[in-house]
Amino acid sequence: MVITTNHFIWTCCFHSKENDINGEWIAAEVPGAVQLDYARHHKWPDYWYGDEFRNYEWMENQYWTYRTTFTRPLLNKSERYLIHLGGVDYACLVRVNGVVLADHEGYATPVTIDVTTVLQDENCLDITLRPIPKAYPEPVDRGQAAESCKPTCSYGWDWHPRLVPIGLWKECVGHKASASFFSQAELRYDLQTVDSHYKAVCYSELAIDGESEGLVIHWTLESPDGAFIFDKIGTVQEARKWVSTLEQPELWWPRDQGSQACYKSCWKLSDSNGHVLDRREQQVGFRRVRLVMNGGAWDKPDVFPKSRSDAPITLEINGRRLFGMGSNLVPSEIFPGLVTDEREQQLVDSAFQAGFNLLRLWGGAGIHRDAFYERCDELGILVWQEFPLACNNYPDSPEYLDILQQEAVSMIRQLRGHPSIALWCGGNELFNAWSGMDDQSHALRLLNSLAFAEDKNTPFLPTAPVVGMGHGPYACVDTASGEDVLSLFSRSTHTAYTEFAVPGPAAVSTLKSFIPQDELWPPRIGTAWETHHGIGALPSIAVDSWLMHATIDSFFGTSQNLDELVAHGQILQSIGLQHIFEESRRQWPACSMAMNWCFNEPWPSAANNSLLSWPHEEKPALQAVAQACRASLLSARVRKLKWTTGEQFMCECFAINHSAETTDFGLVDLVLCIGAKEIPLLSWQAGALQAGTNKIGPHGSVCLPPDTPKQFTLHIRSACNSDYNNSYTFFCEPKIVDENGSRELNA
Amino acid sequence: MVITTNHFIWTCCFHSKENDINGEWIAAEVPGAVQLDYARHHKWPDYWYGDEFRNYEWMENQYWTYRTTFTRPLLNKSERYLIHLGGVDYACLVRVNGVVLADHEGYATPVTIDVTTVLQDENCLDITLRPIPKAYPEPVDRGQAAESCKPTCSYGWDWHPRLVPIGLWKECVGHKASASFFSQAELRYDLQTVDSHYKAVCYSELAIDGESEGLVIHWTLESPDGAFIFDKIGTVQEARKWVSTLEQPELWWPRDQGSQACYKSCWKLSDSNGHVLDRREQQVGFRRVRLVMNGGAWDKPDVFPKSRSDAPITLEINGRRLFGMGSNLVPSEIFPGLVTDEREQQLVDSAFQAGFNLLRLWGGAGIHRDAFYERCDELGILVWQEFPLACNNYPDSPEYLDILQQEAVSMIRQLRGHPSIALWCGGNELFNAWSGMDDQSHALRLLNSLAFAEDKNTPFLPTAPVVGMGHGPYACVDTASGEDVLSLFSRSTHTAYTEFAVPGPAAVSTLKSFIPQDELWPPRIGTAWETHHGIGALPSIAVDSWLMHATIDSFFGTSQNLDELVAHGQILQSIGLQHIFEESRRQWPACSMAMNWCFNEPWPSAANNSLLSWPHEEKPALQAVAQACRASLLSARVRKLKWTTGEQFMCECFAINHSAETTDFGLVDLVLCIGAKEIPLLSWQAGALQAGTNKIGPHGSVCLPPDTPKQFTLHIRSACNSDYNNSYTFFCEPKIVDENGSRELNA
Repeated sequence: MVITTNHFIWTCCFHSKENDINGEWIAAEVPGAVQLDYARHHKWPDYWYGDEFRNYEWMENQYWTYRTTFTRPLLNKSERYLIHLGGVDYACLVRVNGVVLADHEGYATPVTIDVTTVLQDENCLDITLRPIPKAYPEPVDRGQAAESCKPTCSYGWDWHPRLVPIGLWKECVGHKASASFFSQAELRYDLQTVDSHYKAVCYSELAIDGESEGLVIHWTLESPDGAFIFDKIGTVQEARKWVSTLEQPELWWPRDQGSQACYKSCWKLSDSNGHVLDRREQQVGFRRVRLVMNGGAWDKPDVFPKSRSDAPITLEINGRRLFGMGSNLVPSEIFPGLVTDEREQQLVDSAFQAGFNLLRLWGGAGIHRDAFYERCDELGILVWQEFPLACNNYPDSPEYLDILQQEAVSMIRQLRGHPSIALWCGGNELFNAWSGMDDQSHALRLLNSLAFAEDKNTPFLPTAPVVGMGHGPYACVDTASGEDVLSLFSRSTHTAYTEFAVPGPAAVSTLKSFIPQDELWPPRIGTAWETHHGIGALPSIAVDSWLMHATIDSFFGTSQNLDELVAHGQILQSIGLQHIFEESRRQWPACSMAMNWCFNEPWPSAANNSLLSWPHEEKPALQAVAQACRASLLSARVRKLKWTTGEQFMCECFAINHSAETTDFGLVDLVLCIGAKEIPLLSWQAGALQAGTNKIGPHGSVCLPPDTPKQFTLHIRSACNSDYNNSYTFFCEPKIVDENGSRELNA
Repeated sequence: MVITTNHFIWTCCFHSKENDINGEWIAAEVPGAVQLDYARHHKWPDYWYGDEFRNYEWMENQYWTYRTTFTRPLLNKSERYLIHLGGVDYACLVRVNGVVLADHEGYATPVTIDVTTVLQDENCLDITLRPIPKAYPEPVDRGQAAESCKPTCSYGWDWHPRLVPIGLWKECVGHKASASFFSQAELRYDLQTVDSHYKAVCYSELAIDGESEGLVIHWTLESPDGAFIFDKIGTVQEARKWVSTLEQPELWWPRDQGSQACYKSCWKLSDSNGHVLDRREQQVGFRRVRLVMNGGAWDKPDVFPKSRSDAPITLEINGRRLFGMGSNLVPSEIFPGLVTDEREQQLVDSAFQAGFNLLRLWGGAGIHRDAFYERCDELGILVWQEFPLACNNYPDSPEYLDILQQEAVSMIRQLRGHPSIALWCGGNELFNAWSGMDDQSHALRLLNSLAFAEDKNTPFLPTAPVVGMGHGPYACVDTASGEDVLSLFSRSTHTAYTEFAVPGPAAVSTLKSFIPQDELWPPRIGTAWETHHGIGALPSIAVDSWLMHATIDSFFGTSQNLDELVAHGQILQSIGLQHIFEESRRQWPACSMAMNWCFNEPWPSAANNSLLSWPHEEKPALQAVAQACRASLLSARVRKLKWTTGEQFMCECFAINHSAETTDFGLVDLVLCIGAKEIPLLSWQAGALQAGTNKIGPHGSVCLPPDTPKQFTLHIRSACNSDYNNSYTFFCEPKIVDENGSRELNA
């Protein structure tokens, strides 16, 4: 048990040789990053302003030592003194009084060192961080991260500058601790179905640091309403064999499906005199999670030579199939040490407001703080957790596999107790050309093995996408073909869309905060618009990604100023995402997931696919997505965004009930609002709809009158509950005919 | 070390309760099966004649006890007596003098029991086999095998009657053995490339049964030419740490790629007095096998939303990519105890004659005898070894996973030392609807884990087909669409065709050996034609599968008698298979494998997709396949089999060099032989072609003259080496026009 905790005061310096710790000592903050300490000391401007980040490039190649000194703590004979490093970014040597006590590599794995025997009256703790790992010196790109478990994105991405953090990203403290304590105390369970009832077979996974002989363990379980379920006492040996069966436990459910019931498991470790040496507590949500085959997937393929059916990607929780709606998470900060528990909670809260029940923790980022997962447990948001691989060809080498194993096991053991953890995944797009890994890659076979050994009842995906799933596109309109996402998704037949994107610019006030005044208008190459991903971020999509200036103007006409451009871009993002989320949901149960790329961003982007601008500013698209992700809603399939006067506007009508209860949609009306006119399109007696089902209504069509304005609106309204109502904005241009009036020129 | 071996004389009886061993004792043969013993004792007709197999149905539900008695062997103080069960089919209790010494389940795992301490002057060994495992009592189908590792096919298949063997399928003997012996002595290696040279890092994996303290191990390695490479001596503890590096070892290659070089590794276990306690020997072929991405696979898919690229299925041996040609193996006998080492060798020899370099050991069958794998090592035939899962939904239950783990680990450890073992695979068509397993199935995640833990340098597939690969069709002409396999495969774009079939009837003499005289002609339902799979075997393909009488007659006209039908059917099988094998090879490197379904059969089929009739009779198609599987050959793509006079016959010309050397094809001529006429189609200077490559030649076409007979031939000839020549038979019918002579009626 931790008796007292010592929070240190830190300094740091950089040096060029690992063992030659010599340099200018400056004040350091832990958690933090050496780059932040250096900039603070030298009073540099914010790293996120303009092109400031370029000044940090040299730092990634230095050794950085954190130093603190502390007086010998008063320890009685049975006490120990531990140094605990919560999170290291990324590799370090730990020395106390010059003696090397640990040589550590790894982002997710904490380090605890018993320093009792090396303590002196005055002590010096040095933590020397190595230069960032690089698979090769040149070129300077994300491939340099391919032989380590350091989060990949900081090596440079289309929404992340090349700025690779070095530091202690979590707390580093001294603990005065009892002679023996729990290094692990975890309730594990197997949730079995017997005659459609559940029973949870529970046991404790326990490990004691220190002598365990003669110690006593006390284990209790409390129900969600605080009632005692059981109470056991015995030796450590006995405790390891305890098995308790809970008949029909109260289950944990994702949001909109039931309550987020959690039991409380408590362990107490005492010596033979009854002195409590350690206590642990765990919130336990009982749930069974599976990935099952999508609706109709077994019927395909249906011709010879016949390949396999698509892989299962429908989440089933406690026997109930769900449509997974959500987003992809990237780091909230370039420097993970800046992320507080409050920021983590705020992030989850925004995802909740967006209607999401699933978040994909993308493999290019690192593990979150506990507070993130705890909040997901509380709010009923499922977590798709990836291991730290993304868009690289991670090698079969024993050196890499060793560190990967350490990090993966550490992540699984830290997180598997959270009921929100629904899925382990090897990492991002590893089975695509830009990564170059495949089913035979040892890293992915190892991860499957580890996930199976450590948490076999949680599904595992080697990567996303697997067969059947789709990623992309990353634009509202394909610049080559001119096809918009309404058309593309309405003819797509994938099992899940776990990345798709429509970019939008940041708010004007945000843009002004990091783009120098003289670079603000017009957006152009060679300015902060470029370094902040507004232009040229991913040329394979469009030269003007992510601003997509040309696309915006193609819908709204030439933007006259920054305010207009931002307003139009944000509307287009809202419109595009609304349609994709809804189209995916209309395809249920053949399609079972929709997660846009991406939710947040690690620094201010001028334009980005994110729904939140850094640090946590909601773009208008977040509200549009929240509307599209209501558990129950009316929805219309319209197969394109841009229309022409005189054209026959067509739509298909759907009722979607992804809630846990029967929902009555009653009588539904579709109305086209063209200027001040309301043109009725169709009426449909949608009626009551079972939980977890869709209903397809009739088609409707109407000829767009010659006076249709540039924008018009489709409304879909329930007579019995306006909560299900929906509306869509479309664009129109006048029909242009040739001089004879016969041939349409803009068809 | 085995000092002497005691071959027992056996009896057996059946009984209805496990512990009530009472019944008529009859002579039994081991290896064998109780069904064979019973039939022999009762002088039944051969089980494979007519419908005799039906008389065996009751036997699967009985307990059967094998019994032998033996006198106490003379043992000196340090010796032990072991009972060794080489292979049990499928679950048994072993009792010596009434004491239960083993309770075993599993087909592939041998059992060794030390009985020293229970020996009496006269001993009785009882091996009680349990009734066959059944997941459910009804219906009587292959799904009953879904909770065990018993080979699935004997539960009934479209080429296997419902006749489920019970017995000791391998030798069961008594061994007088030394006090300590090797339970494992295995050379393991990691073949690394350093600057394009190979080095093999070798170590011994050793386990000693008995006391190992004070014992000495002597390890030697000899090169393929008998030279000593190294010679080590030390304690058991030391021996476990020995690592030896061979620089540039002579490599083992598949046939047509190089020699099948094998080193000899020897271990000797001695006591401190120098007495040899045990010896082991192993043939070691150094090779590196990988599954790599097919040619062009990374370029696909190329549209948004974008899924993953197809899975790798190109075998790469020692850095060289190969086209895998071969066949699927099923059991050679219904009763595996009938398979001798000679039969195993003969099977591999026939595969060698067929030109094959790869055999798929299909998951519905059991493991082969050592002699099979040894022969594959010698002849350079790669082995795709499946675990015992096929076309069922094997459960996630701990009971099933436990037995699967035991069997899989046993198989891997028995086989991984063979250089021919190129691929582990979970089993057959598990990701298709008729199986119902998927990527999340625990059995397949477990198998991946075990294969990775035990033999990580050999690739693993969860099943076949995986994404990109195709299985089927199983007919020369699709009966619904009328499309033939020439058309179908020439427009297919799969990465591998690891099952495809064209059925053919057995020889007339064979048919007469098991079909009663009065049932021979015409083939009809309700006769041995039906029970022996000639009619109604797989109605989803065709009612008359596998004879495909209607298809045969559609090419050759109505068969007048059995001889004609068999002759025509065998020709059609030859033609169809030739085209599929060659088309697959023409698609190299986008396609990398062709393996027909199937090579052999476990009992006499009236008609079947096999190339060998039971027990080992080559069908004519085997020779046609051998022609199509020559390492180097000329080949022509023709997109259909049946032509009409006046039609423009078209073909595309290819040179295929899948040998290890540059091959000169010189000047190539294509000639159509129409009756006595030779019509030149094209000349092509094909020239020299690099190893492992194809060359596409010109197209040629000619109008089929009005006098084209029912069959005509295409010849493709090399001016410099007739070994590469090829020829194809096609069918022709006269053009039928309407009365005006203008509208073609059979187009």
